[in-house]
Amino acid sequence: MREYKERVLYHLKRNQQEGIKLLKQLIREKSIQEYENKSQAIVAEKLRLLGLKVDIWEPNIKELEKHAYFLSARKNFDGSPNVVGTLKGVGGGKSLILNGHIDVVPEGDEAQWEFDPYSAKIVNKRLYGRGTSDMKGGNVCMLMALEAIIDSGIQLKGDVYFQSVIEEESGGAGTLATILRGYTADAVLIPEPTSMKIFPKQQGSVWFRMTIHGKSAHGGTRYEGVNAIELSMRVVAHIQELEKVRNSRITDPLYKGIPIPIPINIGKINGGTWPSSVADVVTLEGRMGVAPDESMEAAREEFEQWMEQLKIDTVFQEYPLTLEWFGARWHPGTIDVNHEFMQALTNNYRYCLKELPKIEASPWGTDGGLFTHVANIPTIVFGPGETKVAHHPNEYIDITRLHEASEIIACTILDWCGVHDES
Amino acid sequence: MREYKERVLYHLKRNQQEGIKLLKQLIREKSIQEYENKSQAIVAEKLRLLGLKVDIWEPNIKELEKHAYFLSARKNFDGSPNVVGTLKGVGGGKSLILNGHIDVVPEGDEAQWEFDPYSAKIVNKRLYGRGTSDMKGGNVCMLMALEAIIDSGIQLKGDVYFQSVIEEESGGAGTLATILRGYTADAVLIPEPTSMKIFPKQQGSVWFRMTIHGKSAHGGTRYEGVNAIELSMRVVAHIQELEKVRNSRITDPLYKGIPIPIPINIGKINGGTWPSSVADVVTLEGRMGVAPDESMEAAREEFEQWMEQLKIDTVFQEYPLTLEWFGARWHPGTIDVNHEFMQALTNNYRYCLKELPKIEASPWGTDGGLFTHVANIPTIVFGPGETKVAHHPNEYIDITRLHEASEIIACTILDWCGVHDES
Repeated sequence: MREYKERVLYHLKRNQQEGIKLLKQLIREKSIQEYENKSQAIVAEKLRLLGLKVDIWEPNIKELEKHAYFLSARKNFDGSPNVVGTLKGVGGGKSLILNGHIDVVPEGDEAQWEFDPYSAKIVNKRLYGRGTSDMKGGNVCMLMALEAIIDSGIQLKGDVYFQSVIEEESGGAGTLATILRGYTADAVLIPEPTSMKIFPKQQGSVWFRMTIHGKSAHGGTRYEGVNAIELSMRVVAHIQELEKVRNSRITDPLYKGIPIPIPINIGKINGGTWPSSVADVVTLEGRMGVAPDESMEAAREEFEQWMEQLKIDTVFQEYPLTLEWFGARWHPGTIDVNHEFMQALTNNYRYCLKELPKIEASPWGTDGGLFTHVANIPTIVFGPGETKVAHHPNEYIDITRLHEASEIIACTILDWCGVHDES
Repeated sequence: MREYKERVLYHLKRNQQEGIKLLKQLIREKSIQEYENKSQAIVAEKLRLLGLKVDIWEPNIKELEKHAYFLSARKNFDGSPNVVGTLKGVGGGKSLILNGHIDVVPEGDEAQWEFDPYSAKIVNKRLYGRGTSDMKGGNVCMLMALEAIIDSGIQLKGDVYFQSVIEEESGGAGTLATILRGYTADAVLIPEPTSMKIFPKQQGSVWFRMTIHGKSAHGGTRYEGVNAIELSMRVVAHIQELEKVRNSRITDPLYKGIPIPIPINIGKINGGTWPSSVADVVTLEGRMGVAPDESMEAAREEFEQWMEQLKIDTVFQEYPLTLEWFGARWHPGTIDVNHEFMQALTNNYRYCLKELPKIEASPWGTDGGLFTHVANIPTIVFGPGETKVAHHPNEYIDITRLHEASEIIACTILDWCGVHDES
């Protein structure tokens, strides 16, 4: 096996510029939601050149809507295809899904970018642009790994499915569609931006919106009203208490050293209309982290019951809070840390980089939650992107990490799928 | 004097319908900011018919801007005239300014109104519409009182100035312009909606905006950020403490029974942009009440120094708060409760209604603060409007109160200005 690996690694080293060129091409196609098709065309063309069987389809929203795990604000997926390339093995090996999303979040305030977010400029061995880390860089790693294996004349035993999916940033409809189309495997690798950490467990999350009601009055006689801003402070404090309770239960060693393993974040607050009027309504919006081994339903129920406790104070009986679960959610994901696929990945990390990988639980969810809960496939999240720049201005990917991840992924594919020995 | 009063009261009783008709006319002209001229034309025409000398002018913003008490967001007052009618006395009496604002606040959400806010519909002896209580009803009371005196053939000794001013709801530029134009008198009456209470003292107020800064981060790693929403809770709590301290000093018997004499109201809160991001900025807007005997400068300085105390916590050193005094402000106003004008008003209240008036300090400011501080004229606020409906949907004025206030004001004018006895 060592010989095959060295052959593949040699090929990767010689073709580093090809990978960078491909990534630049992908960055230059701004693939925000509803505009993924040009990027997908580049991916599909690459897969065809590699000789894979290519499946391109626009997910059928009518079918997806029937599924409990479906979440999307879109009316249809016209012009937003999924792309899957299949590399058939000769048989007798374990299969693998390589999954990455093609959609990127918008660039935000362009004034905060040092370079055009879609120019793919390289400065100091960093390639800048929206989607470099999250996660076209990861996708390119997988493509380069496959190319190295194929071009080195190696035949795998197990099948490999390369999936370039839409909608990860908005609820995971793209990956759900691949599962419902029948794609499955013995393991999944998702190279989301983990800063080269290996995440066998991923935190899920769910958004909530609380509406706090009060009673308006003139500010000069504010005692005649009930200030929803003051009540909202008590709601925030109560949520903070819940965060403590939920985190006190987390004992997983993967969360060692993490100050708050599953945070509850209050992200938005809006209320009141006039400085000298008592605010009669405030909305709070936030995100609750869901533990890798917890169900989203259980987390929601605990939150709902916790908020009921506020009714001890009659003001919350008279002015009941409303709670909505809205917008995005990501299911948690998990794989046994001693799973054979974990061993393959960690061994090859050591093989390529001559050091031990950092193994943690992720602070955020990915499409891995869908593979875990809907398809029941063990999933690992591991990628070259920088966690801290994802969704931020001046997003970049370190080119050294890009090459390193390609090497680790290529070797892991060889170990996991097995190599057909012609000799 | 009793005979003159009875003559005037008889006239008022006979002409009640005329007063209602005039008020309806004024309500039907929607005189929100910048649209006051049609209402002002009705007032000017009425003053001309009464034989008063009428002064109509658009305040010159360039001149006003030089004044320390000027406050307005407007660029000019084109199309927004002040109207002042002068009724010269024969001499030897005290003069009086009757001041009322013609501007009304917008109607707000029309769906919350039972009737068209500008239809001036009467139901159960209540006249409904924006501006009925605040404060065209009060203005009409003064006009009816003057008409009754004039049509009864009574000649006053002192001068009376009827002022219909713009901009009270937005900082008092209209009244300031009358003062700078040279209008002055021995006392001022402002019939703002006091629910027939007499307010010798008026609470001032000033708006503040606090900006609380934090540091953004992904909600899943919220411990890497500093949540401005959490910091804002501490700022709100600190402001609540200041409110306690400030109110503990209020010993004026006029505030007896008022739960919070000079409240600090937090009216608006806005912060954060995304449920799963740590909010990096929150703005709080509110109104601080200023005690009748306190200067606005002293109140502001206390607030500023109080907020400095937060810096005991290093987080507020690293993320300093910013404080702005913005938007509206109303200076407090005060007259000695034993002032002769107070006696005239309270005596005539008793004379007309056969009961003692309620004398309190107002929970809000009026243009009376400008008369107190800029023109040094003792000012009383007393009017027929309902305090609680001002600025609210379904604003109305009770027609009985309208007539009662006309009577009390007419008799007070007679006593204060004195009657020229022809016999």
